[in-house]
Amino acid sequence: MDVSSGTIFLSELLGTATLILLGCGVVANVTLRQTTGFSGGFLMVTFGWAIGVFAGVYVAYESEAHINPAVTLGLLASGANLSAVQVLAYLGGQLLGAILGATLCWLAYRQHLDDAETEPEAKRGIFSTAPGIRHPVWNLVTEAIATFVLVFVIIAFGQTPSGLGPLAVALLVLGIGVSLGGPTGYAINPARDLGPRIAHAALPFSGKGDSDWGYAWVPVVGPIAGGVLAGLLANALGYV
Amino acid sequence: MDVSSGTIFLSELLGTATLILLGCGVVANVTLRQTTGFSGGFLMVTFGWAIGVFAGVYVAYESEAHINPAVTLGLLASGANLSAVQVLAYLGGQLLGAILGATLCWLAYRQHLDDAETEPEAKRGIFSTAPGIRHPVWNLVTEAIATFVLVFVIIAFGQTPSGLGPLAVALLVLGIGVSLGGPTGYAINPARDLGPRIAHAALPFSGKGDSDWGYAWVPVVGPIAGGVLAGLLANALGYV
Amino acid sequence: MDVSSGTIFLSELLGTATLILLGCGVVANVTLRQTTGFSGGFLMVTFGWAIGVFAGVYVAYESEAHINPAVTLGLLASGANLSAVQVLAYLGGQLLGAILGATLCWLAYRQHLDDAETEPEAKRGIFSTAPGIRHPVWNLVTEAIATFVLVFVIIAFGQTPSGLGPLAVALLVLGIGVSLGGPTGYAINPARDLGPRIAHAALPFSGKGDSDWGYAWVPVVGPIAGGVLAGLLANALGYV
Amino acid sequence: MDVSSGTIFLSELLGTATLILLGCGVVANVTLRQTTGFSGGFLMVTFGWAIGVFAGVYVAYESEAHINPAVTLGLLASGANLSAVQVLAYLGGQLLGAILGATLCWLAYRQHLDDAETEPEAKRGIFSTAPGIRHPVWNLVTEAIATFVLVFVIIAFGQTPSGLGPLAVALLVLGIGVSLGGPTGYAINPARDLGPRIAHAALPFSGKGDSDWGYAWVPVVGPIAGGVLAGLLANALGYV
Repeated sequence: MDVSSGTIFLSELLGTATLILLGCGVVANVTLRQTTGFSGGFLMVTFGWAIGVFAGVYVAYESEAHINPAVTLGLLASGANLSAVQVLAYLGGQLLGAILGATLCWLAYRQHLDDAETEPEAKRGIFSTAPGIRHPVWNLVTEAIATFVLVFVIIAFGQTPSGLGPLAVALLVLGIGVSLGGPTGYAINPARDLGPRIAHAALPFSGKGDSDWGYAWVPVVGPIAGGVLAGLLANALGYV
Repeated sequence: MDVSSGTIFLSELLGTATLILLGCGVVANVTLRQTTGFSGGFLMVTFGWAIGVFAGVYVAYESEAHINPAVTLGLLASGANLSAVQVLAYLGGQLLGAILGATLCWLAYRQHLDDAETEPEAKRGIFSTAPGIRHPVWNLVTEAIATFVLVFVIIAFGQTPSGLGPLAVALLVLGIGVSLGGPTGYAINPARDLGPRIAHAALPFSGKGDSDWGYAWVPVVGPIAGGVLAGLLANALGYV
Repeated sequence: MDVSSGTIFLSELLGTATLILLGCGVVANVTLRQTTGFSGGFLMVTFGWAIGVFAGVYVAYESEAHINPAVTLGLLASGANLSAVQVLAYLGGQLLGAILGATLCWLAYRQHLDDAETEPEAKRGIFSTAPGIRHPVWNLVTEAIATFVLVFVIIAFGQTPSGLGPLAVALLVLGIGVSLGGPTGYAINPARDLGPRIAHAALPFSGKGDSDWGYAWVPVVGPIAGGVLAGLLANALGYV
Repeated sequence: MDVSSGTIFLSELLGTATLILLGCGVVANVTLRQTTGFSGGFLMVTFGWAIGVFAGVYVAYESEAHINPAVTLGLLASGANLSAVQVLAYLGGQLLGAILGATLCWLAYRQHLDDAETEPEAKRGIFSTAPGIRHPVWNLVTEAIATFVLVFVIIAFGQTPSGLGPLAVALLVLGIGVSLGGPTGYAINPARDLGPRIAHAALPFSGKGDSDWGYAWVPVVGPIAGGVLAGLLANALGYV
């Protein structure tokens, strides 16, 4: 790939920030009680994340819009030609962009985050994911399966002249959300979970509670495992 | 068609597995009580199945993505040039892929499927369809009409330079779901119903109940009848 | 236009039947109590009608897919070159297609239409529209405004190389439904209302009630007025 | 830009009227109690506004469809070549179009707006936005962030051959609505808020209440600040 590391870093930072601002934003909207979208339902949440990806992919066009470490590492496993410095630029831009996006979401919902009647766990859920039934092994399995679908189908998109580009990825993320987001809240992106969790720990608002660091490794390891497996299998099966 | 039977088999297997993983997944999400999408509504269910088709069509691009025996047999009836071995590769790949997809869904929702307060009928509904009012003849009619629309309109897509491809099919499946899915849960695909029903019978989880084999022929025969009729009529009316 | 009247008639008949089968179907699904989509909400209803249009437009591609007398007459008013016989083929195919589509919907929901606990008014609402507040003049105004938007924007679509074709029309119908469908249920198509009303009067099922013929002229006259006005204004403003 | 000011004015007037008719219409539909869409949910509202933008962009194609003063001023800040007279034609067409669109919405929902059991605040909410928690500074911040995303991503659209055009903008507006519309109801467009507020003050219906002029400056200043900032930053970062 012939793009400079600096361009990759900035492009991924801006694209991931866009994704996380819209993604965390929609959860804030359905969670906090005095918003227009309070109790808007899970379908609305999945639309918010899907369009976050859609917008983020356009913003990050110069770096081919990974905006997700599991995509970067999955493409690497499938045979993509990236230098070590480029990979670091991708991962660094993604993580910093996620922190920036979560901070912008905090700014946009600043007054609402202080709401006294929203539980600390619900407020944390605006930032990072949590499983319905806590069980690290099975939560890992769910995240790995969901991310496998993401990376494998994204690679399959490249084989057909769809003309849909970012829209195809957005619809895929919508489908993964409604279909596989049930058990763990579909991180399917280590930066999407870790970045906002860091923001949650750092930013001030009332009734905050802890950042659930004990679970933080699951939405990092699971998506990376699923993404790398998808890259290897897509390569072996001839999808690349 | 110049694709080898082995390629057809593998392509259909992977595409149908993708479809069923996302399709059964969304029903699991709205059915099981500790998921993020519990009680998410029927519109969300139809989005999950629609995007399952969308993703499956990309994954199965090498075999032109039937991922549904009613489509394979309907296209055959409309005059498509497939050998007997190719047809068997399509049908075999679709059925095995559906079983694989349902098994991956079982893995993704493993902990949640053991939920003690969900009725066995509801758990079975994650895998295969069931009618609201049980009446084999009218259930057959409903499935045949819905599958007729699916196959006839897919053939009509071929006449116009839409550029939408998999998105058009996905929207069509969304529309058939919301509009004609009411009475029988819109199998409209024998593999979609039979494969997960076999998986339901084979896979272990608590509170499972029977697999309702008495109904199993309806979502096989109805869709095949509708698909073949659509193929014949599309040919007679000049849509091919 | 160089298409024979026979081709126009058959094409519009099949396309309008597709539209009405999916459109009336989604209302049956949310209205009747033992379906999977019961109480699925108005957004789901608007998706059903939108995708009915989407599928119907592909089916009726040979006649350029008016599938709506208000579109045919609106295009005529905007300067389209159609002979009197062609116009009659359009209108006749549309009305007969709408009756056929409503009959297929009746077949698909046959058992459910006999439901004893659904009010006759709700059953009639599966077939034809009714206003929330009955007031012929204002109901006419609402239908005329909504159909004006439909025909005017469809004509505007022709000015830009969107590449979306049927999807653009489907989204427009979705938007008109959610935004302007509130007061009268958005017939915006004389055949869509009159055809199913005739089917409602003719088809047998229990607990049927009358067909509300006193209102039947409103969703015929209002959409025609709005469509013709849109055609004239689009022509005057240079959109054609 | 080589389009005459008269063409710009008329094009923006018609496009913005389309946007506001569909946008205010969907709020009327979910707010007023005797409509088909009453209590249809926030996701439905965001679809109405998104398709309002979609349709409005086609109608205003001759002026490149700003239909939003924040877009006009943001593009100017990013370096777009517009004369002072052209800018005035944009802004004037947008504001008058918004008043016209709100008036058409009032006509379409005329009987329903008199409903005696709907609160004056809810009726005003059909026309203009209001914050969940009233705090001018933070309301400004939220509007500025949401409009920044709108203008920045629209500029980014220009860098990639997406082929989606108006659909991309509509999806973006849908995403901004579900994700950032919570605190203030996402004006993100000074004309969208001010025009209907003027219409609310001028048009007669019962149980109207005041037009909340004390808040009116926030959805004007916030979006302009966000749009201009987006234009400047997009230019500085090389997105133009």
